Amino acid sequence: MAERTVVALGGNAISPAGTAGTASEQTRNIHATMAQVAELVADGHDQLVLTHGNGPQVGNVLIKNELARDVVPPVPLDWCVAQTQATIGFTIADTLGFELARHGIERPVVPVVSRVAVELDDPAWDAPAKPIGPYLDDEAEVARREEAGQHYVRVGERGWRRVVPSPQPRVSLDRPAVELLLDDGAIVVANGGGGIPVVSDAEGPWRGVEAVIDKDLAGALLAQEIGATTFAVLTDVRGVAIDFGTERERWLERVALDELRAHQADGQFTAGSMGPKVEAACRFAEGTGHTAAIASLDEAVAAVGGTAGTQVSP
Amino acid sequence: MAERTVVALGGNAISPAGTAGTASEQTRNIHATMAQVAELVADGHDQLVLTHGNGPQVGNVLIKNELARDVVPPVPLDWCVAQTQATIGFTIADTLGFELARHGIERPVVPVVSRVAVELDDPAWDAPAKPIGPYLDDEAEVARREEAGQHYVRVGERGWRRVVPSPQPRVSLDRPAVELLLDDGAIVVANGGGGIPVVSDAEGPWRGVEAVIDKDLAGALLAQEIGATTFAVLTDVRGVAIDFGTERERWLERVALDELRAHQADGQFTAGSMGPKVEAACRFAEGTGHTAAIASLDEAVAAVGGTAGTQVSP
Repeated sequence: MAERTVVALGGNAISPAGTAGTASEQTRNIHATMAQVAELVADGHDQLVLTHGNGPQVGNVLIKNELARDVVPPVPLDWCVAQTQATIGFTIADTLGFELARHGIERPVVPVVSRVAVELDDPAWDAPAKPIGPYLDDEAEVARREEAGQHYVRVGERGWRRVVPSPQPRVSLDRPAVELLLDDGAIVVANGGGGIPVVSDAEGPWRGVEAVIDKDLAGALLAQEIGATTFAVLTDVRGVAIDFGTERERWLERVALDELRAHQADGQFTAGSMGPKVEAACRFAEGTGHTAAIASLDEAVAAVGGTAGTQVSP
Repeated sequence: MAERTVVALGGNAISPAGTAGTASEQTRNIHATMAQVAELVADGHDQLVLTHGNGPQVGNVLIKNELARDVVPPVPLDWCVAQTQATIGFTIADTLGFELARHGIERPVVPVVSRVAVELDDPAWDAPAKPIGPYLDDEAEVARREEAGQHYVRVGERGWRRVVPSPQPRVSLDRPAVELLLDDGAIVVANGGGGIPVVSDAEGPWRGVEAVIDKDLAGALLAQEIGATTFAVLTDVRGVAIDFGTERERWLERVALDELRAHQADGQFTAGSMGPKVEAACRFAEGTGHTAAIASLDEAVAAVGGTAGTQVSP
């Protein structure tokens, strides 16, 4: 079997930090990222799966849902995730296809609308913690939405923000399609935005739920499921730092799994940003015995090649 | 090569006429439709592609775009089509997977986010005629939107409605993925909502455009491209009628291509409803030498089997 690579693209691969931008801004940014991904493919990473974040994009969809709620029925969060998979996915297909052609490579690029199963007894259901959507400063509006079943937390001076459960990804339901397409020579986009979260009831089809799965964890899961030998999380910092932002700050170039787990247990990594990336890299290294990378998007080729960012060895 | 079947599902397969409904209503309706599609698969239509309409769903997305336009940048129409492909697509995957399992059939169901190429010199660009989105009664609002480049037509007492160009589908760009998946045993959803309309500029990636491709024509195109031997358009009437709604009304059970083309030239079929279905069936019969069907969704299995609806022979 050809070697398989999974690359998880952070929000900065799609839009500048903190904004979702217009469609043409997102397209330009995705195109710039795909120029790098095409280098990866040209470099021989043949069986390649891309996954991607969608935070600001889902935020925009949620705002539209709320502002239009008296006119059209809001769609649930799992539908919002699906919507962002499609828009980001086909823009990747357009621009990566174009960049590959510049390398003389003709390969189908296929975004797979991806569902990821979570469990109904995941402890995350009782502790919604993943912030999504815009900041609100209208307390009455927050109260109205909490009445309707949403959860909000106060985030300092910026106001209130919705939080949703972020359950553990258990099974990538569309993995069979991903593997068929890889074996057929396609480059695949899958588990975007962490995947569409679904649960299984006793009887009935898979059912979408109001949750957001972490995209790095969903990427690491898929990487393990398809037997990838390389997993890279690409983001807007150069790698993993210990004592980040202090005088003792130290960037890790190569780190053994055990050591990284120890730093993690020390509370070195924040829940919202580096935490899930480190957890995803650890799970991949543990589960497969292969090295995982956390690196800057700008160093994609070197990072996947093992010579940039933080390399986490099993 | 196994025989291939393409089935184009009308809006009634997704939501009751004239409404987009809530997500759970759409899901229930799609599930009921997929119970029938599962019968088709169990009946031996092994290499099956589904395509589907998305009119009311795109209408909802457009309303949200407009109501939120001062807060988040509206996304272009091609993105709206992509969004509906994802939500309808994964709901089909969920419910068809479930119904197939009840028949003891385990096959991947894969929605392909599908782009369809149109031409920049299509005459449709100069004559936007496809109505989309809600009816408006506020003339000042209509004027504002026309200022912003949209086109509106007065539709009797119901008010104004946006019209967009509906260019001819020329190439299904994601056909390679569709064929790979079919050959691998998957059931594929493709060219939903007529496909995401894209054009090719001299230099640069495929670029989305503000247009809507007719879903029956995009289905007929894909059916020809993949060498399908059966093409069925399923809708909410039992087939094609001549002198529809008059005393001389006559339903066609079997009709030769030439005869149907003659009725078409006589102006028997309206642009907004039966017109494109008849055109799609004719193109398929002409292009492949195989029979096309136009029938009620309720008679899906018989229609695909050649014994219900209107059968158009080459």
